[in-house]
Amino acid sequence: MQSIILAVGAINLSTVNRNVELICIGNELLIGKILNTNAHWLARRITSLGLLVRRITVVGDDLDEISSAIREAIQRKPSFIITTGGLGPTFDDKTLEGVAKAIGCELEENKEALEMIKKRYEQYVAEGRIKKFELTKYRIKMAMLPKGAKPLPNPVGTAPGVLVKYEGVNLVMLPGVPQEMMAIFDESVVPLLREVAGNMVFYEASLEVRGVPESDLAPLIEQVMRENPYVYIKSHPKISEKTSYIELHFSTTSEDSSVARQRIERSIMHMSELISERGGKVRPIQA
Amino acid sequence: MQSIILAVGAINLSTVNRNVELICIGNELLIGKILNTNAHWLARRITSLGLLVRRITVVGDDLDEISSAIREAIQRKPSFIITTGGLGPTFDDKTLEGVAKAIGCELEENKEALEMIKKRYEQYVAEGRIKKFELTKYRIKMAMLPKGAKPLPNPVGTAPGVLVKYEGVNLVMLPGVPQEMMAIFDESVVPLLREVAGNMVFYEASLEVRGVPESDLAPLIEQVMRENPYVYIKSHPKISEKTSYIELHFSTTSEDSSVARQRIERSIMHMSELISERGGKVRPIQA
Repeated sequence: MQSIILAVGAINLSTVNRNVELICIGNELLIGKILNTNAHWLARRITSLGLLVRRITVVGDDLDEISSAIREAIQRKPSFIITTGGLGPTFDDKTLEGVAKAIGCELEENKEALEMIKKRYEQYVAEGRIKKFELTKYRIKMAMLPKGAKPLPNPVGTAPGVLVKYEGVNLVMLPGVPQEMMAIFDESVVPLLREVAGNMVFYEASLEVRGVPESDLAPLIEQVMRENPYVYIKSHPKISEKTSYIELHFSTTSEDSSVARQRIERSIMHMSELISERGGKVRPIQA
Repeated sequence: MQSIILAVGAINLSTVNRNVELICIGNELLIGKILNTNAHWLARRITSLGLLVRRITVVGDDLDEISSAIREAIQRKPSFIITTGGLGPTFDDKTLEGVAKAIGCELEENKEALEMIKKRYEQYVAEGRIKKFELTKYRIKMAMLPKGAKPLPNPVGTAPGVLVKYEGVNLVMLPGVPQEMMAIFDESVVPLLREVAGNMVFYEASLEVRGVPESDLAPLIEQVMRENPYVYIKSHPKISEKTSYIELHFSTTSEDSSVARQRIERSIMHMSELISERGGKVRPIQA
């Protein structure tokens, strides 16, 4: 009976679409002005929730680039496309226009979004941060959402996040300011991701290897992965002026965290033995 | 006469294809294990050389993902596609296989590349870093290049970089280890980029703005950009627990560095006046 249950489990897992794509929008990323910490933070959080980031695309503040990146991502049919950047009041904030163009719909003034924006500015006035405010076209712009979209409250800043469902894909648009992006993600996006991911957990650990070059680790990695089919092992050569070593990173995903932990522990023990036999030294790396 | 010369200059600039795409390969980027510092460094360097990074794509260690990302980039016809990662000896180093699949050619043992790899291991033996070495299939793998490719010497590590020309696009494959990537880029790729970029320079400066919200800066940005058509101005709201302000980033590209500097200075002065008139405060940000 157990084998049948396992089989059902496996089928369940494979039929759930856990693919996520990130699209980061902003010239500042393409000119190397800033590091893409948003993609890094999102990739880590999404992975830890048990979903799979399949691609990260960075494009500039260009309507055609944004809409084609979104259209291409939709064609790959991920469960979620999450964008960062381009939701603000300035002329180069073109993300929502890009989404509308990609899915062939109009932008319209969203009452709920406008209400959120108004409340935020009223709060700024009450706090004395600004003297007064008018609903200028630049402020109304932040409430011009694709038809049928849902605004996601921004607990930190002005521009709301946006959710649009299109052809089975959840399109989530988040601001580029990290604090705003993170706040909306935690409050409004995590619950949506959890619905898809269920109880999947991602488990990982790393080993520092010295005394065996990467090209000699290659067959050992293949051997340990063959005997631990749910564990992914990747080697990362680390070089600095003072020292160099190989980091071996072990990871797995499971609905049962103790199963995940056991898989990693078993493959690390196995790998450590093989490396010791070849005269190498291993040591766990603290996360 | 001057207007004619200017017109010729403008035609020259627009006919040179200065577009570059980056493709970063590695599961470690998609699970958020590491920050994509390679893309950041390359984008900054390429921009400072006067070229335009148009897109950055991150995919995992998956042959189909790699080859489709490369094929899609080729279709957009940039002057250069630069990849990072996936050139090493392990099973998941699939970049060159992905390139070969994308451009429909075979991988073959490249004598020059094999010689580079052999020399590197002989050096490791001479330095006592390893006792002996054999040309195992894992080491030969690093010399299996797309037919007609040119290996680019790796002054720091083992795997050479690779250059392939295909349909007018320069495909440059660099290792993922930052020190190796940077060394090959500086030694072998910069001269190729300079051939395309000529004497173009990128010039930038930033202004810290307080006391005017971003939505009220929006019309000022439009006004200054209209009157300084070669200058791009982008606003970046900065929030921290202690303080919040807007960074206004001014940038331009020109073949004449003094022209570039003057453009930026003029637009910064103009913007500063407009902000002061509205009761805001500005201060230059040191790079």
